[in-house]
Amino acid sequence: MRALVLDHHTLTLADLPRPRPTGECLVRVTHAGICGTDLKMLDGYASFAGIPGHEFVGIVEDAPANQRHWVGRRVVGEINVGCGACRWCSQGVKEHCPNRTVLGIRQRNGAFADYLTLPAANLHEVPASLSNIGAIFVEPLASCCRVLEQTAIDRGTRVAVIGDGRLGNLIAQVMCTRTTHVVLFGRHAHKLRAARLSGIDARLNDTPDDGPYDVVVDATGRPQGLVRALDLVRPRGTIVLKSTIAHDTALPLSQIPVNEVTIIGSRCGPFAPALDLLARGIVRVERLVSATLPLEQHAEAMTRARTELKVIFDLTAEG
Amino acid sequence: MRALVLDHHTLTLADLPRPRPTGECLVRVTHAGICGTDLKMLDGYASFAGIPGHEFVGIVEDAPANQRHWVGRRVVGEINVGCGACRWCSQGVKEHCPNRTVLGIRQRNGAFADYLTLPAANLHEVPASLSNIGAIFVEPLASCCRVLEQTAIDRGTRVAVIGDGRLGNLIAQVMCTRTTHVVLFGRHAHKLRAARLSGIDARLNDTPDDGPYDVVVDATGRPQGLVRALDLVRPRGTIVLKSTIAHDTALPLSQIPVNEVTIIGSRCGPFAPALDLLARGIVRVERLVSATLPLEQHAEAMTRARTELKVIFDLTAEG
Repeated sequence: MRALVLDHHTLTLADLPRPRPTGECLVRVTHAGICGTDLKMLDGYASFAGIPGHEFVGIVEDAPANQRHWVGRRVVGEINVGCGACRWCSQGVKEHCPNRTVLGIRQRNGAFADYLTLPAANLHEVPASLSNIGAIFVEPLASCCRVLEQTAIDRGTRVAVIGDGRLGNLIAQVMCTRTTHVVLFGRHAHKLRAARLSGIDARLNDTPDDGPYDVVVDATGRPQGLVRALDLVRPRGTIVLKSTIAHDTALPLSQIPVNEVTIIGSRCGPFAPALDLLARGIVRVERLVSATLPLEQHAEAMTRARTELKVIFDLTAEG
Repeated sequence: MRALVLDHHTLTLADLPRPRPTGECLVRVTHAGICGTDLKMLDGYASFAGIPGHEFVGIVEDAPANQRHWVGRRVVGEINVGCGACRWCSQGVKEHCPNRTVLGIRQRNGAFADYLTLPAANLHEVPASLSNIGAIFVEPLASCCRVLEQTAIDRGTRVAVIGDGRLGNLIAQVMCTRTTHVVLFGRHAHKLRAARLSGIDARLNDTPDDGPYDVVVDATGRPQGLVRALDLVRPRGTIVLKSTIAHDTALPLSQIPVNEVTIIGSRCGPFAPALDLLARGIVRVERLVSATLPLEQHAEAMTRARTELKVIFDLTAEG
């Protein structure tokens, strides 16, 4: 099968044997999205070597004997696979299992290939009303829904989202389902325009604003995001940190105790509400897709993903 | 009156006019404690110029006409004075009033002088069972009790406190009132010994430990404290940041989202439970006091406060 292989900061298209699942389902990937984490790993984050990619939609082609009903279904998949034995796994929180593998991120080959394997427990069937392109967004949107589990946001809550990339856009859309006071801050005119087309109050970073905010979500992927969040948040307010910053970052720490700010780290989230928001058209993602490319054009895809909103691999196409 | 005056990183003993309270009570200070914040201000933090000192006990000598009942009482005092008009003040949260003054820290002369003034609303009478030395600890202990308001700590909660100074010691004692799993980490053998005499499980920083911990409180006053806290805390655990770090600090930020850690900034706290814990002898502070010096020996006092547990000014003495 075709597979993009990451090794020492280099991505290469290779011809690898199709994986042989042991106790897992074999999924033929039809589409896979490029995420900021993929770009960070290309730059050295997480020391991953193997096939990256963790946002996908595909068709189950094979399954263990007792899970044959999955075969033929169109699925998306949760990316964390736990050991099944630890305290976290026993609580159903496999994303914090210390022995976990993570699709395309940690000791498990990912979705930038014709095939991947995942346990059936990780799979979610995609409803017919949701397109393949829409389904790509289930995993990142789930991570946005995680913010709703971690913070108390109601109609009166004033929320700022920093970062006008794909994640910031999705988070702002999710926040808009709970409160009418959502502002998205960014630095790219074309990305802010796309956000406004989705009905988001999107502003350039240096716009005078009517802060401070009760909740500030940092989705910049950059160290400066948290520094700006500390400026925007009110005393006793909450910052949700979505950005995974690879290197150590200098912060004005004294603002945290002086203003009694709470910072909450936020990672993966629940698939069910994300599937629901997409299937019902409450979160709209079509405008985010700037390119759909075959695996063979991975160099162009990765380059464009650094500046454009969303670049997707179409594995049903050949380059 | 005698007063220590801080100006451009220099502390000088001066003879100043006694303050004339307008709508506030006049307090004759009998004892005042040196806090880490005082030392940081001496090093330039908060750009304060004036009389520092915010941990005190004293006798009310004068009061506005409608508050004459305070005269003669022995008191400690909350250090934040709000504007009385803003949203925070209307909620009774004067410590976050944007226009607040803070005793000895922000636009208000403090306790390293024979007299200070505070509104009667800030004062708490000291019960007869509590010594002057004990009363000095009400303000810092209140800030430790704040942690109990911000976190859910019950009998089974595993707590680590980092920092074996006066604040870390007090926090550990407060945590011990809620859970039997408290470990204090530090780097000074003599301070750890003092903690053990108070019944605290106190260990050197590099001792192999049985972490991770549900809650980690950083009271090191040093940037490295938060870095170590990120190592000690479990996934989805809570770090309480008590340290006020004057300069920007480099942090391994990615651990926050990856482990979904919550960091809570914590500052001033409620006086009533602190008074209660001290008056009932549940928190013991005698062992923390290493020196009681007259105001005239301020240079020695400040120097010793950098390495010893607690140095106190006795304003009833003359140097």
